[in-house]
Order: sequence, then C-alpha cells, then structure tokens
Amino acid sequence: MSYTLYIGNKNYSTWSMRPWLVMKHFQIDFTEQLVRFDGFAADSVFKQTILPLNPYGTVPVLTDGDLVVSDSLAICEYLAERHPPLPLWPQNYKARARARSVVAKMHNGFNHIRRHFPMNIEAVLPEIGQIVLRDFPAVKQEIDFLDQHLSSLLAASAGKYLFGEFSIADAFYAPMCLRLKGFQIHTSEILANYINTLCATEAVAAWIAQALEEKDFIAMDEPYRIAR
Amino acid sequence: MSYTLYIGNKNYSTWSMRPWLVMKHFQIDFTEQLVRFDGFAADSVFKQTILPLNPYGTVPVLTDGDLVVSDSLAICEYLAERHPPLPLWPQNYKARARARSVVAKMHNGFNHIRRHFPMNIEAVLPEIGQIVLRDFPAVKQEIDFLDQHLSSLLAASAGKYLFGEFSIADAFYAPMCLRLKGFQIHTSEILANYINTLCATEAVAAWIAQALEEKDFIAMDEPYRIAR
Ligand SMILES: N[C@@H](CCC(=O)N[C@@H](CS)C(=O)NCC(=O)O)C(=O)O
Ligand SMILES: N[C@@H](CCC(=O)N[C@@H](CS)C(=O)NCC(=O)O)C(=O)O
Repeated sequence: MSYTLYIGNKNYSTWSMRPWLVMKHFQIDFTEQLVRFDGFAADSVFKQTILPLNPYGTVPVLTDGDLVVSDSLAICEYLAERHPPLPLWPQNYKARARARSVVAKMHNGFNHIRRHFPMNIEAVLPEIGQIVLRDFPAVKQEIDFLDQHLSSLLAASAGKYLFGEFSIADAFYAPMCLRLKGFQIHTSEILANYINTLCATEAVAAWIAQALEEKDFIAMDEPYRIAR
Repeated sequence: MSYTLYIGNKNYSTWSMRPWLVMKHFQIDFTEQLVRFDGFAADSVFKQTILPLNPYGTVPVLTDGDLVVSDSLAICEYLAERHPPLPLWPQNYKARARARSVVAKMHNGFNHIRRHFPMNIEAVLPEIGQIVLRDFPAVKQEIDFLDQHLSSLLAASAGKYLFGEFSIADAFYAPMCLRLKGFQIHTSEILANYINTLCATEAVAAWIAQALEEKDFIAMDEPYRIAR
C-alpha cells in the first residue's frame, strides 16, 4: 500500500485539506503532491497535471497503486475501509450514520458561505465579514444554521470534537471553521471553543503552518485583495 | 430493524429517488412516507413535516427506530453497512472506491444540468432541450462530459450497469438519465442503451409508473410549463 495525495494550495484548498487532515491525524503514511493553482483553464499547469489522473479535473486525488480515488469524501470512505482498526468514523453505528449525514451536508451544502467566504488561511478580513453579513442575508442564515447545528452536536458529544474523538466529520468542518475565523464571524461560545480546539489539533495546526509558509497569491481565490 | 423513508413527489424529487431505488432493487423492506412539495417556505406543510425530523429540511430522510439519516448518500452508506450480504456497492474494493468517486461527483457536481434540466418524469420537452443546449454552453459542456464519462465506465463494465450489476452508482445516475430522456438530449449509443436498461430495471420502472400516477403539478418545479 503506497498512497500519493494530490492537493492544491494549502492556503486556499478546502477540499484538499479534508483527507490530508484525516491521513495526518490517523498517521496514515502518504506522499504529498502539491499542484499549485495557477489557473483552472484547460491550458493551466494545474489542469494539465490533474486531468490525466482525474477526469473531473479537481483535487484532492488519492492514488494507491493503479487505483485513483477522486473526491474528498470517496477518499475518506476508502481510507476508513482500508484501515478498519483506525476510528476514522465514529465506532458506534448510529453515531457513524449521523456523522455521515453531517459530512454529506458539508459535501453539497453551505453554498452561500462557500461563495462569499472563500478559505484564505493567511488573510484576516473582519470588515469584509461584516459587509457580507450585512448585504447577503442568505450567508447570514447559513451561518446561523451552522452555528446552531454544530453547537447542538458539540453539546451532545462525549468529547471535544463533533462526535467524541476527532473523526472525518471534524476534518470536513475544519475549513469552514477557518473561514469563520478569517472573516472574524461572531459565533456562539461553544462553537468558538470548538474552533480553538480544532486549531490546536496537531494535524490542523500543521496544515495552517504550512499554508502560512506558502507566500503564494492566487488572484482567482482573492476576491477581496489585490495583493497580500 | 424497521425503516421509514420520507420522500418528495416522485415526478420531481431526484434525491428521494436514489435511496428508494436502492431499497426496492435490493428488496430492503421499508415504509414509504411521501411528503408533497407544497412549497419550501417555512410555513409549508413540507417544511413543517420534515424540519422536526431533519434540521436540513430536505428529503430523503431515513428513520430506523430513533436514528435519523438525512442525506441520500449517507442513507445508502448506512444501508450498505447494515446489509453486508447485499452488493449495494461493487464487491471488489477498487471498483467500490471508483463507484464512490462517481457517486460523489453526482452528489456535488453537474450543477448546470441540474439547474436547467429539472427532473420532470411526466414531461417531454425536446424544444426546451434544444434551446438550453443552444443558449447555455456550460450545460452542453457538462452533458458532453457526462456522456463521455458514463460511456467509458460502461465500456469497461462487466455488465449492463456502471459497475457490472446494479449498484448505488446506478441509482445515483438514474435521475440524470431521466432528465436526458425528458429533454430528449441526443447521446452516444452506449449511453442511450444504458438509459433504456435503467428504465427497464424493475425498481426504476416502478418509480416511473408511480410518478406518472401522481397527477400533481408543482409550479416551483415547472420552469417550462404553466400546466400539464
Ligand atoms: N467534490 C470534490 C470537489 C473538489 C474541488 O472542487 N476542488 C477544487 C479545489 S479546492 C478544484 O480542484 N477545482 C478545480 C476546478 O473547479 O476546476 C471533492 O470533494 O473532492
Ligand atoms: N444533500 C441532500 C439534498 C437533498 C435535497 O436537496 N432534496 C430536495 C428535494 S429533491 C429538498 O428537500 N429540497 C428542499 C429545500 O431545498 O428546501 C441529499 O442528497 O439528500
């Protein structure tokens, strides 16, 4: 078993972050291939590197020998299956079904937050945060829902994470938490504490540190700045 | 084990269709609760029925005793886990990882097709199909990609379905195929044959027959008609 994980820029790539966190946290060995976001046009180095591997043209991609797994969630499910002793998902089957529901919601929901609050680990943009909340009620609504929803999961959790110990569910919500942090969105105390817990989690802290080292400015991911 | 599956109108609800097909095809017993799409506003009967069960306010929802699973994919994963002898996913672990990638792509991709070609099993709208393809190149692009992608999976398949026998992957692409059929989109022969195979599959045929019996006209799902 020899894994390679293809990811995008750590400062910007939320989907890449998720399986990376899972692999680091559970100490699943892998080779990392960072494919810089020079653009998403057909002639970009990014697309020319990724498309021959993954017809969807996106990162993350996990390869395991001749097998290519080409979606953040499919990668996490694959790893959970291949490493059964590791609790990538909650061990209780009901908690696992709930965690999968919560992860699926992140996998195709929260579109307004995603559009208006792109992840940008290096940036701190509190004024943009206020303007977006003022001008886009749909973003505000999603954030209120997110806060309520995570708070109730955390209140019911036996540990500091969404379902007790760190699991795929936390990896899926980590990028969202970093968006809230970067745009300095006010949250409930329980969610604020959870964001701190996540940021202090070794794998998350490592991703953040490496994102800060990148010193790359990708204009297409920077709707709110012209330079760092 | 006693399942209840909450679904929306069969004529329109693509997400509901997926786990329903899986349960019917694999003969997993369940009680069906159809919650009519009278609207998605907070005071709709739909939301007032679904929200107390599922905070996301969407169908499908599967209940199993006190457990609530609230997403089409999470439901399929739950069922696959609970019924290990049934091949809901391909049995080979590599094929399964590929099937999960393909399903994940449907779970959060093809947004242009979804927006412009809502599923409407009862309607046949070839002219709208042509107009949309003419005016929205992004839809055309997604359809070309979809056709190529499914064709290459089918060409490599050992059976008539995407991964040999009928699996969750086919359930996920069935609503997409019915969109292509309803808007009479021209496809490759291999995809056209697959659409016929799907429509002749007992569970799919049963869903379609029940959709046609509904005789309900839901304006919010009918951008192209004012009546049946
Ligand atoms: N469903 C995919 C989405 C992956 C995705 O959209 N990745 C972005 C980077 S974070 C990408 O590669 N975008 C390229 C493009 O949109 O052309 C997953 O969960 O892995
Ligand atoms: N990610 C969900 C999406 C479910 C979904 O959007 N369902 C639609 C009906 S097909 C719905 O309930 N919409 C209600 C709304 O958008 O308010 C899943 O896969 O189950």
